[in-house]
Amino acid sequence: MNTICFDYDRRSRVGLPEAVFCEGKDDASLMILLKRFVRGSGHPVLFTRLAPERFEAAPLEVRRLYDYDSLSRTAYGDSLRPEGVVRGAVAVVTAGTSDAAVAHEAGRTLEYLGIEHRYFEDCGVAGLWRLQERLEEINACSVVICCAGLDAALASVLGGLTSRPLLCVPTSVGYGAARAGETALSAMLCSCAPGLSTFNIDNGYGAACAAARILNLGAS
Amino acid sequence: MNTICFDYDRRSRVGLPEAVFCEGKDDASLMILLKRFVRGSGHPVLFTRLAPERFEAAPLEVRRLYDYDSLSRTAYGDSLRPEGVVRGAVAVVTAGTSDAAVAHEAGRTLEYLGIEHRYFEDCGVAGLWRLQERLEEINACSVVICCAGLDAALASVLGGLTSRPLLCVPTSVGYGAARAGETALSAMLCSCAPGLSTFNIDNGYGAACAAARILNLGAS
Amino acid sequence: MNTICFDYDRRSRVGLPEAVFCEGKDDASLMILLKRFVRGSGHPVLFTRLAPERFEAAPLEVRRLYDYDSLSRTAYGDSLRPEGVVRGAVAVVTAGTSDAAVAHEAGRTLEYLGIEHRYFEDCGVAGLWRLQERLEEINACSVVICCAGLDAALASVLGGLTSRPLLCVPTSVGYGAARAGETALSAMLCSCAPGLSTFNIDNGYGAACAAARILNLGAS
Amino acid sequence: MNTICFDYDRRSRVGLPEAVFCEGKDDASLMILLKRFVRGSGHPVLFTRLAPERFEAAPLEVRRLYDYDSLSRTAYGDSLRPEGVVRGAVAVVTAGTSDAAVAHEAGRTLEYLGIEHRYFEDCGVAGLWRLQERLEEINACSVVICCAGLDAALASVLGGLTSRPLLCVPTSVGYGAARAGETALSAMLCSCAPGLSTFNIDNGYGAACAAARILNLGAS
Amino acid sequence: MNTICFDYDRRSRVGLPEAVFCEGKDDASLMILLKRFVRGSGHPVLFTRLAPERFEAAPLEVRRLYDYDSLSRTAYGDSLRPEGVVRGAVAVVTAGTSDAAVAHEAGRTLEYLGIEHRYFEDCGVAGLWRLQERLEEINACSVVICCAGLDAALASVLGGLTSRPLLCVPTSVGYGAARAGETALSAMLCSCAPGLSTFNIDNGYGAACAAARILNLGAS
Amino acid sequence: MNTICFDYDRRSRVGLPEAVFCEGKDDASLMILLKRFVRGSGHPVLFTRLAPERFEAAPLEVRRLYDYDSLSRTAYGDSLRPEGVVRGAVAVVTAGTSDAAVAHEAGRTLEYLGIEHRYFEDCGVAGLWRLQERLEEINACSVVICCAGLDAALASVLGGLTSRPLLCVPTSVGYGAARAGETALSAMLCSCAPGLSTFNIDNGYGAACAAARILNLGAS
Amino acid sequence: MNTICFDYDRRSRVGLPEAVFCEGKDDASLMILLKRFVRGSGHPVLFTRLAPERFEAAPLEVRRLYDYDSLSRTAYGDSLRPEGVVRGAVAVVTAGTSDAAVAHEAGRTLEYLGIEHRYFEDCGVAGLWRLQERLEEINACSVVICCAGLDAALASVLGGLTSRPLLCVPTSVGYGAARAGETALSAMLCSCAPGLSTFNIDNGYGAACAAARILNLGAS
Amino acid sequence: MNTICFDYDRRSRVGLPEAVFCEGKDDASLMILLKRFVRGSGHPVLFTRLAPERFEAAPLEVRRLYDYDSLSRTAYGDSLRPEGVVRGAVAVVTAGTSDAAVAHEAGRTLEYLGIEHRYFEDCGVAGLWRLQERLEEINACSVVICCAGLDAALASVLGGLTSRPLLCVPTSVGYGAARAGETALSAMLCSCAPGLSTFNIDNGYGAACAAARILNLGAS
Repeated sequence: MNTICFDYDRRSRVGLPEAVFCEGKDDASLMILLKRFVRGSGHPVLFTRLAPERFEAAPLEVRRLYDYDSLSRTAYGDSLRPEGVVRGAVAVVTAGTSDAAVAHEAGRTLEYLGIEHRYFEDCGVAGLWRLQERLEEINACSVVICCAGLDAALASVLGGLTSRPLLCVPTSVGYGAARAGETALSAMLCSCAPGLSTFNIDNGYGAACAAARILNLGAS
Repeated sequence: MNTICFDYDRRSRVGLPEAVFCEGKDDASLMILLKRFVRGSGHPVLFTRLAPERFEAAPLEVRRLYDYDSLSRTAYGDSLRPEGVVRGAVAVVTAGTSDAAVAHEAGRTLEYLGIEHRYFEDCGVAGLWRLQERLEEINACSVVICCAGLDAALASVLGGLTSRPLLCVPTSVGYGAARAGETALSAMLCSCAPGLSTFNIDNGYGAACAAARILNLGAS
Repeated sequence: MNTICFDYDRRSRVGLPEAVFCEGKDDASLMILLKRFVRGSGHPVLFTRLAPERFEAAPLEVRRLYDYDSLSRTAYGDSLRPEGVVRGAVAVVTAGTSDAAVAHEAGRTLEYLGIEHRYFEDCGVAGLWRLQERLEEINACSVVICCAGLDAALASVLGGLTSRPLLCVPTSVGYGAARAGETALSAMLCSCAPGLSTFNIDNGYGAACAAARILNLGAS
Repeated sequence: MNTICFDYDRRSRVGLPEAVFCEGKDDASLMILLKRFVRGSGHPVLFTRLAPERFEAAPLEVRRLYDYDSLSRTAYGDSLRPEGVVRGAVAVVTAGTSDAAVAHEAGRTLEYLGIEHRYFEDCGVAGLWRLQERLEEINACSVVICCAGLDAALASVLGGLTSRPLLCVPTSVGYGAARAGETALSAMLCSCAPGLSTFNIDNGYGAACAAARILNLGAS
Repeated sequence: MNTICFDYDRRSRVGLPEAVFCEGKDDASLMILLKRFVRGSGHPVLFTRLAPERFEAAPLEVRRLYDYDSLSRTAYGDSLRPEGVVRGAVAVVTAGTSDAAVAHEAGRTLEYLGIEHRYFEDCGVAGLWRLQERLEEINACSVVICCAGLDAALASVLGGLTSRPLLCVPTSVGYGAARAGETALSAMLCSCAPGLSTFNIDNGYGAACAAARILNLGAS
Repeated sequence: MNTICFDYDRRSRVGLPEAVFCEGKDDASLMILLKRFVRGSGHPVLFTRLAPERFEAAPLEVRRLYDYDSLSRTAYGDSLRPEGVVRGAVAVVTAGTSDAAVAHEAGRTLEYLGIEHRYFEDCGVAGLWRLQERLEEINACSVVICCAGLDAALASVLGGLTSRPLLCVPTSVGYGAARAGETALSAMLCSCAPGLSTFNIDNGYGAACAAARILNLGAS
Repeated sequence: MNTICFDYDRRSRVGLPEAVFCEGKDDASLMILLKRFVRGSGHPVLFTRLAPERFEAAPLEVRRLYDYDSLSRTAYGDSLRPEGVVRGAVAVVTAGTSDAAVAHEAGRTLEYLGIEHRYFEDCGVAGLWRLQERLEEINACSVVICCAGLDAALASVLGGLTSRPLLCVPTSVGYGAARAGETALSAMLCSCAPGLSTFNIDNGYGAACAAARILNLGAS
Repeated sequence: MNTICFDYDRRSRVGLPEAVFCEGKDDASLMILLKRFVRGSGHPVLFTRLAPERFEAAPLEVRRLYDYDSLSRTAYGDSLRPEGVVRGAVAVVTAGTSDAAVAHEAGRTLEYLGIEHRYFEDCGVAGLWRLQERLEEINACSVVICCAGLDAALASVLGGLTSRPLLCVPTSVGYGAARAGETALSAMLCSCAPGLSTFNIDNGYGAACAAARILNLGAS
């Protein structure tokens, strides 16, 4: 097992605390980290891609000091407190049920960062009315996160209907030509709607951090 | 130069006459073919991907026996006559101005095959109203051909708004992640709208032939 | 678990009912859906890519209200009734035994949609006689679905022998250069036979829906 | 030549005016558009990817009614006026001299949109001091656009040094494993710095529009 | 310009003389080689991929000592003489007119090696009768070379109809999903017909050398 | 389960009997086939890619009527008898121990076809002496099959040292840039040694069939 | 099971002993090798990619004659002794905790080869101070190995801060656009820092051998 | 035109002076740089990828202050002087004539850096004797650079015959499956010979810099 060098002051530098990406970490290192960042430790850290069976492997006294969510596979002990500033909400929009895990990774990250957010699920464009009915509510938020797989057509349609910063997260939903999210990623990158920004496949965490960077602007 | 063996009776076998794909053919072969299939030869053949400069290289007395169109890069001498059957029209819908060359390859092939068709251009979904205004007219046609590049989001949106056979042609419009039409192709293949069929990149000719296969059903 | 927003009136809009793609859905969502759409619910829905072990996880009283097929991994409760129109049959042709699961996904979807169909299996072109013997029967159908993996040569050969709409489904059969169906997909897309339309890898469901779009034309 | 259907009210809908991507448009269509949107027409439009030789092909009386820049290959007639709101500036940072064309496409778009911006060029991380010397000035801006090719390492380094929204544009600089910008694109998408958003290869225009979406938030 | 180290005795080692692949060689090196291997030099060498304009750049007194063919882009001075052995003929079969350049590179290499061969062109399987009519003649040859692009379906069909060694050369004919011959290459590699061997895209030269390796067996 | 249409007379047509590729076949179909082609059935068939656990699932009385080999994952009941003709032997050469499974699939196929063969294993070129010591024996065979993974450098070296038909089988050995055999496949396809033919990744069966096609020439 | 031909004198030829790559080897071959090269056998061999469960399958009396490490998945019996020459140390630098397995494969190989080395872990550039604090110590070593995944930005930054030979090993850390290490590999290959050399994904062993080749220079 | 920020003290930091990669730079920037770094300016800079026609575009009085070489497309004014240390020579080995441009980019960079080097050209392994005859001379050098395209088999063979640091540069020679050097690159990365390091396609400059990093070790 190797020693770990932590970037504790990232928050002061870039306004975002350190996070731990759990996939690919060996069990021993993960356990050390889980024990170090429990609620009350004073060091807020968000664990992402933490599979239920790996979290279950931690002792009960550790687990109960975490807020864990299995759909999004995230956990945190201490969270960040909103710092007395009204910063506006984030709309998290999905195309279909299968995009939920990614959308909730974004939502949980926002929750951890103390940022208000709302879900708008199943807005896939094959049934346009589902999006149109909720458009007003979506536009009432300051920032929009759009999670979609397959051809990700929702991104372009939404891009033509909102003036908000639109953060697009391709999901690995689908088979064959969906290529584990690569098609959705490429489609979002070359959307004809102007000013859409794109994130890595299934990277709900990244989109939430980008939303925080935007909303922190208004706060400062 | 090599001898050429032609499939003259393809029409009786599959209901579609032979066509000549001009790209990649050497100049000598192309000239022989252009001379053989002029108007009045009794052998209708469609030339596709025939660049203006290559057509211009033919002698005037050959050229004036062809109906040539430079946008679609197609030419034909004799065309097929509609065989006394009302077969319904084809809607050719495009997302943007840059899809016009492909759409017109489809339209010209339909024209050559004696099939009625109408263009609906610039219906890209970043401005949904452009599609919605023309939806009724589109649905009045029997078959819909959709030409779109970039993320090809138009295909999914259209697929949710029409019950007609929807033939999707990705175009090579765009740069970077558009990957010369590969992204549009993949996006169309994994659209969440049900029952969309897809064709090779820029293959307006193929979609028109598929429309003919469908409309011939009603005719027989 | 997330709430689910269903597109109940898709049928009236595009002539095809909603379907549920089960892969990638979390267990809780899937169970809710299975309970909602049993026979007698009045809402016909087709479940695709429903693995036997996931279906087995449902309670017996739910399972016995479904028509489930393990080869095609499909289930439905209520099905659509043919609406008093003779619409013609669909031929489902395969190259080899390994293409059966995809072919039967197409066949089961047609069954659910109330459309007549027949299977023509093991027609791979390495033994041309197997196709030639059954060609007349195939051409007696109105629409042809061709399921083939590897180099998908069957599509081009069939395309030269039938005038029917030919819907090509690449399958993920094979290894190495077959690249999980990508080669079959590309081969079908660039077939030299004119007017073939192509679907996503293993997408028997999509081809059946496209066949329905075509046959519904005659019905309307 | 085909008729063109324009999305004139995009600005009111998404806060950004229509733009014309010139590559892939046929000459006739381009000329019509250039004639329609000259200074004084009342319809501000930005032309992007307008090669010098194509602009030179327009008549002098048209050309002199445009503000054209050959490095960024952009032109506009009427521009947008800043609407009386202090909205903060954008820092446009590049890794090397070869990224200048893309950076200036971003800068010119911002200029057209009436948004203040500053260039910080040649900050490639192989010589870290070049970035560190200018960091304070960069962080004085509200939004940062980072243009880099090759391995795009600048994005990750910058992401760890600024709390501002960081919009990353991969450039097609380099050869071999740079793969025309694909490596920079992938590298930016999977940067370990949190909350970076990414745009299509060479898409300076898109990043500028995203910056506008962010800065418009403060304005509204 | 760099010195060149030639493998003169390759013929005694592997039964095949040295060849010069001209693409990518600088002009000075190519000219030296063209001057060295003229007819009468005693060193038979085959030049492949020698573009007409590069050959034309050589002085007339050099050019007239070569047998040059522009379709196949090949040249040789001294050729190999058949060494008194009846070795059987090679059938060179193509799917379409556009495969001619590759087929003739194979044929010219065989000619240079003193091996009998016959062309069977335009046998694409979209019109099966074209192949079936000539099958007997093809099977009268000892070895079959098959040149095909697009989906290369001809290879599988031919593989089911001949017991001869079948050497498959994919060609770079086509566009979009043909991917410059990659699809034909992959299709040939995963043909369901047994015992087909495959060569690089457009590598008629390689297939001819492989035919020589086979026919030399009977000779030894 | 689906009915199966067998190509019994393939042998008379192409000199090679039918084979059954077991991967991807459902269990029920496989069991029917295993029961049909036992020793004494009079129909020789080779089963390839038959995993030990799938073979073990068959009843003992079926299994003992097969000659099964777990390294190569092949089984056959009746084999072909050499038809009284001396046809020469095949050398099966490998680069390393990990190539053994593929080499033995080739060897087992040859055994089944009644063709003499010898193994030459661990001849990787990082230790050239291993190949050089055995070169004379290899060249005493009529045909050479070369199985190699990683960079497949053995193919080029061997191609410069033998005049025999050289059949190259890339193997899926390695990680990272080996890309599951794609690198070995591409390397063999563009070897600078002339006249090498290539097969699909891990396709020992195909190379053996190609060897049979060559050796059958001498026999006829 | 197949016989194994070993390259015992590789050490005298290239200064590096044989190694056994265990992935892809069948169990029987691996066990023979493990029994042959125990401590005291006089033949030092390094086993790489030896998964814990495969090592555990060996009898205890074999296992206790090996030095096995589960993080790096390496084992050796006899190791090489440093040959009385001061050759300088190697710095093994990583970007993050997930790169540890690869870094330790490099470290263990160096240990086996008798070369001094030190680890510098968690130096990812999103927190530049972690690298800068340790730079002096890193530059006190003769050779630097850099292990990084994702966008591998550490390589470029380090390349601008050290004059030492810099050996870059991409790791398969990450998801989506990280593409199992391909992005890190490409990024390292096109780093703008001059003179970086690159190794296969996760190939810590290779980088250690390259370090040995460099340090052996000084020793000779 | 944009201002340029130069990294003048790179040499003191990493032992290598700044270089200018000319491809992709606009003409105005290139001219400024060419005028700034002429012989006698006191700032040694190497220009790489400087096409003859671009160099010719400079005024004669600038050109004559440069040492320009058209094969390698390199130029420099002031060069580095060897600093009184014997540092050993570099062997630059190529597989074929077409690799010369890349090999000479390496050689010219070494010349500029004041490092002794020798060329060993046309050592392709299809004729092993060409390499074996020169092996002793190659091993007399301290570092070996190997430039090869196609399947790059030379790298593995050389790797088994030398104990020197072996720096492998894939070249973009070839067509089809050579994929513009990608195959050579992948092949070198997964060579079975231990300790080979790899560089970007055609990056002779990078390999020379890596050689300098190694030889500088001995010098310090």
